Amino acid sequence: MCPHALIPYKPVNPKTRLSCILNQEEREAFARAMLADVIAAVKGAGCSPVIVGTELFDSDDVQVTVKDADLNQTLNAILPQSTGGQMLIVMADLPLATSAAIERVCATKKDMAIVPGRGGGTNVIFLREPTRFHVNYYGTSFNKHMQIARDAGLSCEVIDSFRLHTDIDEKEDLVELLIHGDGSSRKYLEDLGFELSLERGRVGVRRRGT
Amino acid sequence: MCPHALIPYKPVNPKTRLSCILNQEEREAFARAMLADVIAAVKGAGCSPVIVGTELFDSDDVQVTVKDADLNQTLNAILPQSTGGQMLIVMADLPLATSAAIERVCATKKDMAIVPGRGGGTNVIFLREPTRFHVNYYGTSFNKHMQIARDAGLSCEVIDSFRLHTDIDEKEDLVELLIHGDGSSRKYLEDLGFELSLERGRVGVRRRGT
Repeated sequence: MCPHALIPYKPVNPKTRLSCILNQEEREAFARAMLADVIAAVKGAGCSPVIVGTELFDSDDVQVTVKDADLNQTLNAILPQSTGGQMLIVMADLPLATSAAIERVCATKKDMAIVPGRGGGTNVIFLREPTRFHVNYYGTSFNKHMQIARDAGLSCEVIDSFRLHTDIDEKEDLVELLIHGDGSSRKYLEDLGFELSLERGRVGVRRRGT
Repeated sequence: MCPHALIPYKPVNPKTRLSCILNQEEREAFARAMLADVIAAVKGAGCSPVIVGTELFDSDDVQVTVKDADLNQTLNAILPQSTGGQMLIVMADLPLATSAAIERVCATKKDMAIVPGRGGGTNVIFLREPTRFHVNYYGTSFNKHMQIARDAGLSCEVIDSFRLHTDIDEKEDLVELLIHGDGSSRKYLEDLGFELSLERGRVGVRRRGT
């Protein structure tokens, strides 16, 4: 059985690096669709999602809302109080997440598990004893988290998953979603008219009518 | 036990999209180092590498050399003759490949397994009966290979591995290698002076002295 899953989430003006192809309203709806895919994967793995948001928004799931919050400060205020057992921290922009991949993370025999994101980031952290760890996101957070684990004497497994490695930040990342996605965020993009395109032998995305 | 592993390889003027940061001699040495990492991973998984090259080059490993060859034509000439059992096809630009990841591919219970590459490509194919399949690389080859499997009535498992998903084509891809690599291609880059850099909050690579 999996633990509570903290999912940091920014409902207002998210994913600004997609501004070249999605306006603010669309980016907010797209972020919401990606969150729905992550929640589905997490629930399918038997975990209870807790959305750690910067604004209250319409949702049936449990929300912790921290206005003007720094992600690290917020999570590092929660972790020391988490004496109730295992915890998962999952980014909200992982629309390729599957329950099987989340289960592989939670199945680690080590003290913790980590899934690296693109470009040195950290996409998922599993903590057997959350009180023994603190987070340090941004930049090459993967390396920082591995160091924090070593400093805390925690054994750590790196989980080899491209579905959890693929965070969506830029237009090029949408290629992966259109090829490998099967949830609400892929459907949202397709409903907007997004499709794969082949340009000089390389696969990209385009929006019909633009 | 794993099967023969075909590794397509271009020793002369490879990886031209890295020309912005590596000259031809360096690109050739770097491609050779990536090949060495792939060979080590494949051998560690109990597979026998067979390098399918466009030129003969200095190597102790078995080489099949096809001059002026089209990748698809070459492989599709080999597969129908492969009546001796299972076969693996592994791209040579996967320096994060590990034996554990290759073993996960070969452990499939399905007729075949496939690992998608970045941008819709195909990085690894495992075939229980190679004579029943043919390849179609380039473009969104992942989708094409899934369709070929369906048309041939072959069950297919998609293996979720970021280590085998991460092919190295462009400068930005080197970030992953410098963070997650531990073989000869990472060492080669570091010896050339490559290191991680943080530019406006995003992780990149730079070459010292340039």
